[in-house]
Amino acid sequence: MIRVLLVHDGCLMRSALTMLLRREEDLEVSGSSWRAAVGQADSLRPHVCVADVECPGAAVPGTLTGLLRRVAGPAAALLVLATGTRPGLLRRAFDAGALGYVSKDAGPQRLLDGIRQVAEGERFVDESLALGLLQAAHIPLTPRELSVLRLAAEGSTSAEIARNLHLSLGTVRNYMSTITRKTGARNRVDAIRISQHAGWV
Amino acid sequence: MIRVLLVHDGCLMRSALTMLLRREEDLEVSGSSWRAAVGQADSLRPHVCVADVECPGAAVPGTLTGLLRRVAGPAAALLVLATGTRPGLLRRAFDAGALGYVSKDAGPQRLLDGIRQVAEGERFVDESLALGLLQAAHIPLTPRELSVLRLAAEGSTSAEIARNLHLSLGTVRNYMSTITRKTGARNRVDAIRISQHAGWV
Repeated sequence: MIRVLLVHDGCLMRSALTMLLRREEDLEVSGSSWRAAVGQADSLRPHVCVADVECPGAAVPGTLTGLLRRVAGPAAALLVLATGTRPGLLRRAFDAGALGYVSKDAGPQRLLDGIRQVAEGERFVDESLALGLLQAAHIPLTPRELSVLRLAAEGSTSAEIARNLHLSLGTVRNYMSTITRKTGARNRVDAIRISQHAGWV
Repeated sequence: MIRVLLVHDGCLMRSALTMLLRREEDLEVSGSSWRAAVGQADSLRPHVCVADVECPGAAVPGTLTGLLRRVAGPAAALLVLATGTRPGLLRRAFDAGALGYVSKDAGPQRLLDGIRQVAEGERFVDESLALGLLQAAHIPLTPRELSVLRLAAEGSTSAEIARNLHLSLGTVRNYMSTITRKTGARNRVDAIRISQHAGWV
């Protein structure tokens, strides 16, 4: 038997997916929201942790790597569900040691194949996510630039960002110019849009 | 028998949800992506159209009302799935004549109850979405202001917005000030963030 912990925030979709997996005789499936998932691995001791990284509970890319590690625990093989439109999320999953990458645009059989393969300790990567993983190999912004951009994306003014990060106003403006240039954006709004879309912030 | 057309973009979740609904003896279920859904109603003649309004294919609030009408066709009762965090989407569904509003945070039984109730021509509203529907009753921005904001959100500069909408630069700047004030935002980025979060643009 393969014990599976399924992590997804919406109760409806989680129930439906759990039901789908439970039809398989070699799978024993528990479902959990992201919020409730931390610590579950200690008691459930799953062989495979299947996590949808596009849920609200996983929405902070900056902390996703650590969260994935805590949710999967030390023993489970990690398999992430994603759509491939946000390479930054795949990168965080890769950093967390994920073995499996299954597209939500693929059919159920792909997920079953993926679960069985990562349970054997082997990698499983959907073709459609492979490109995203390649793109994800490189985040063009430094951690400091990402901090600045994250605050800007929350609507903070340059002065507020400066106070928050203990920087001078000029330094924040320099960071914003660098960020705009590096992301190939037209302006601050565009830089935020591009970076959120890629899953960097 | 109640014929159900289920509209959701991700193949995996759509398959899981379809499987869940097919366990019910009184339901006959077909699944479709948003892209493929237009025109399906003509051939399938569903009694109920269940549509997830938070999919990428439904992501343009400005056109969602018309899209929902086309997808459901003239005869089907419309039931939307949502999480209640984006009242603007609920408003578009309401404008499209949706009878049912089921939360994706609710269990499968709620969806089944909702389908059977709207199939009888009755309203069905999840408590957790009722507040969102109330908030959604009022979008504080005019259609013109929404057009300006939508372009700004795509990263257009004021000059580009002016050219695109055949307005003067001063008029665009006035619109942006009004939008910032009306949304209670700190600045342009904040106004975009607030409006996207509410599902207005």
